[in-house]
Amino acid sequence: MPSALNFNAGPAALPPAALARAQSELLDFAGSGMSVMEHSHRGKEYEAVHDEALSLLRELLSVPDEYDVLFMQGGATQQFATIPLSFIPTGKSADYVITGAWGEKAVSEGRLAARLVGADVKVAADTGVGEGKARTYTRVPAANEVKVSSDAAYLHLTSNETIHGVQYATEVGATFPTTGSVPLVCDMSSDFMWKKIDVSRFSLIYAGAQKNIGPSGVVVVLGKKDFIASGRKDLPTIFQYRVFAENNSLYNTPPTFGIYLIRNVLSWVKGEGGLVEMEKRNREKGRLLYGAIDGLGGFYTCPVEPKSRSLMNAVFRLPTEALEDKFVAEARKQHMVGLKGHRSVGGIRVSMYNAVSVEWVRTLTEFMKEFAKQNG
Amino acid sequence: MPSALNFNAGPAALPPAALARAQSELLDFAGSGMSVMEHSHRGKEYEAVHDEALSLLRELLSVPDEYDVLFMQGGATQQFATIPLSFIPTGKSADYVITGAWGEKAVSEGRLAARLVGADVKVAADTGVGEGKARTYTRVPAANEVKVSSDAAYLHLTSNETIHGVQYATEVGATFPTTGSVPLVCDMSSDFMWKKIDVSRFSLIYAGAQKNIGPSGVVVVLGKKDFIASGRKDLPTIFQYRVFAENNSLYNTPPTFGIYLIRNVLSWVKGEGGLVEMEKRNREKGRLLYGAIDGLGGFYTCPVEPKSRSLMNAVFRLPTEALEDKFVAEARKQHMVGLKGHRSVGGIRVSMYNAVSVEWVRTLTEFMKEFAKQNG
Repeated sequence: MPSALNFNAGPAALPPAALARAQSELLDFAGSGMSVMEHSHRGKEYEAVHDEALSLLRELLSVPDEYDVLFMQGGATQQFATIPLSFIPTGKSADYVITGAWGEKAVSEGRLAARLVGADVKVAADTGVGEGKARTYTRVPAANEVKVSSDAAYLHLTSNETIHGVQYATEVGATFPTTGSVPLVCDMSSDFMWKKIDVSRFSLIYAGAQKNIGPSGVVVVLGKKDFIASGRKDLPTIFQYRVFAENNSLYNTPPTFGIYLIRNVLSWVKGEGGLVEMEKRNREKGRLLYGAIDGLGGFYTCPVEPKSRSLMNAVFRLPTEALEDKFVAEARKQHMVGLKGHRSVGGIRVSMYNAVSVEWVRTLTEFMKEFAKQNG
Repeated sequence: MPSALNFNAGPAALPPAALARAQSELLDFAGSGMSVMEHSHRGKEYEAVHDEALSLLRELLSVPDEYDVLFMQGGATQQFATIPLSFIPTGKSADYVITGAWGEKAVSEGRLAARLVGADVKVAADTGVGEGKARTYTRVPAANEVKVSSDAAYLHLTSNETIHGVQYATEVGATFPTTGSVPLVCDMSSDFMWKKIDVSRFSLIYAGAQKNIGPSGVVVVLGKKDFIASGRKDLPTIFQYRVFAENNSLYNTPPTFGIYLIRNVLSWVKGEGGLVEMEKRNREKGRLLYGAIDGLGGFYTCPVEPKSRSLMNAVFRLPTEALEDKFVAEARKQHMVGLKGHRSVGGIRVSMYNAVSVEWVRTLTEFMKEFAKQNG
C-alpha cells in the first residue's frame, strides 16, 4: 500500500528517515550482532544512544546548563500525579490554568495526588464555557485573567491542548502568564520540539514523546536543577525527579527502544536544519490549513479564537455531522488518515507534527476545497 | 558482525523470528502504509495487536477467566510503589519475603509508598546473611521460616532474584509459602513465561517485559479481579489497577511498540510449542550449565543452594577476580556477551531466558571446560 498521509494526534507520524534507520539496523545495532533492544541499558552501546538523545535535546532546544534533561515513563498522565507529589509541600497548594481537556485532567489527577501529601491544587484560570460534556474551550486566558497566589508551589499550564486545538500562539500575542517568583510548570506534550522556546521561563517542562519526537512510552522532562532538587525526599524513588537526574535516567531500566527512536528523530530534525526549519514548515502548514478553513465561504468553521489556534492540532467543523463522517471517509480513500476529531468533541482534527510534510497539508487543503465545492 | 550469543540479564536476547518480523513490517504495518508506532492506540489496527498480545498471554499461561491481564509502565520498580499504595489499607501492613536484592528494594520502596496512605510493610522472612554491601543470598526460605501475619494485606515475594540467582525451584522441592487467606503477590520479572505456572495461587503477578517476553518499557500484570477491585479508589487514576482493567490497558497511551513486540515474541513461543516446550529447553540449558559448574573440579563455584538455583540467571565464581575478568574478556572474543555479574555482587552471571538457545549454552559450557583446563 502507498504511504499514508498520517494526521494522527499521537501516536503520530514519524519521519520516514528515522524509521528507515531503525529498520536497517534492527537486527544488528552498531555492528554488535544484536538489536538495540537486546542491549543492556548499562552497556556502552546503549549508553551512547541514550547520551546522544539527551545531547540532541539540549542542543536543538538550547537547554541551559542549569537544567536537567530526563527520560521518564507513564505519559503525561503520570506526570499529573508525580509533579504534585514531588513539588507541593504539605499544607501548600499549586495553581493550575485550564484551557482544555488535558488541563482538566491535570487538575483532577493533581488533586488526588496532592491529598496523599496533605497538599492541594487550585484553579487560577479556566477558559471553559458550559458544563459537563458540553464544556468547550476556545481560547487561552489573557494575562490579567490568571490569578496566581504568591505562595503557590507552582503554576501549571498546558501550552497546547491536543483535543481542543487551543495553543498559546505566542506569535499572535497570546503570552504565557507572568508568575513572578512562582515556578512555571508546563505540559508541552503536543507542543514540544517544533520551534525554539525560552526554556529559562520554566521550572519544569514535560512532554510525552508520541507527538513530535518518537513512539509512545517515553516522557521527556526538562527541569531546573534547583527546582528538581527541591522535591520531596520521602517518596518512592521512582516518583523522585532527583533520582532520575542523579542517575542520568538510568536508575531503573528505561524504555531503551523508545529512547533510541527519539535519537533517530532528533538526528533527522538536526539534519533538516533544526527547530528554525521545523518552525518555518509548521507555520507554513498552519497558514495553508487555516487559510483553507477560513477561505471557503464558511463551509468549514474553526471554533478557536485566532490568537489561540493551534499549529499542532487544528480542529474544525462542517455544516453537519453527516458531512463530517463523509469527509473522513472520503479522505481515507485518498490515504489521508487520523482526521476524526477526538470522540469527546467530534468534528475534524488535523494534527501537523514535524513529520507531517507541507505537501501532505497541501494535498489535504486541495481535498478540502474540492469537498466544499461538491458538498457546499 | 556475526550474531552475538547474548546472555544479558535484561534487556535481553529476543527471538530472531520476532525481531525479523518487526523489521519486515516496520514501515508498513498490516498493509496500512504506516509503522505500527505511528498508529493511534485507539485505531483498529493497533487494537488488534494489543488484543492479540493479551489473548496470547491468557492462552499460553492458561490464565483463569477471573483474572485481569494488564499492560502497565515503569518497570517492577514502579510496581514496588503502586502495589502498597493500592492494596494496603490505612492502618494495616503487608508482609514481604526477601531472597535477594530485588526483594530488598521491594521492601524499602514499599515502605515509602505505604507511608503515603498511613500503612506499613513488614519482613516475614529474609534469607540474607551478612550486613550492608556484603549481604549475600543463597536460598529461598523453608515454608516454616515465613511468618505471615493473618491480617497482612498480602504476602509479597520475588520468585526469581535476577542478581543473586536465587529462584523458587519448585521441581526440587522449594515451595512458595503457604499463606492461607492472605493474598500472594509475586514479582516474576525474570521468571515469567518460561514454564506453566498455577496462576490461581496468586492474587497478583507482575513482570517487566525485558527478560522473557519483549523490550523494556512494558510491565505485564495478572490480577485476580476481586483483588484488583479491592484497591484504593482515591489514588491518581494512573496508579489504580482497576482503571487499567476497566479500560483494557488503554486508559492512557500505552507503549504501543513494546506491546507489539510482545505479540511477536509470544506468537513465536506458541509456534515453538508453547510453555511446555520452553520449559523443556530451559531445563536442558540449566542441566548443561550447572553440570559444567559442578563438574569441573571446583574451578567454578555456585554459591546458591541446589534447591534455590535459578534456571534464568545462573551465578558462579572463579578462583580469582582476575580470572573472572579474563573469562568475560575471552568469552567476548567468541561473541558471548552479557556474562559479567551484576556490579553489586561481582562474579559471572549467565542469563538464559527463552530466546537463549540450548546451542548457545552448549557453546558456553564448551568454552568453560576449555577455560578451566587452561587456567585451572
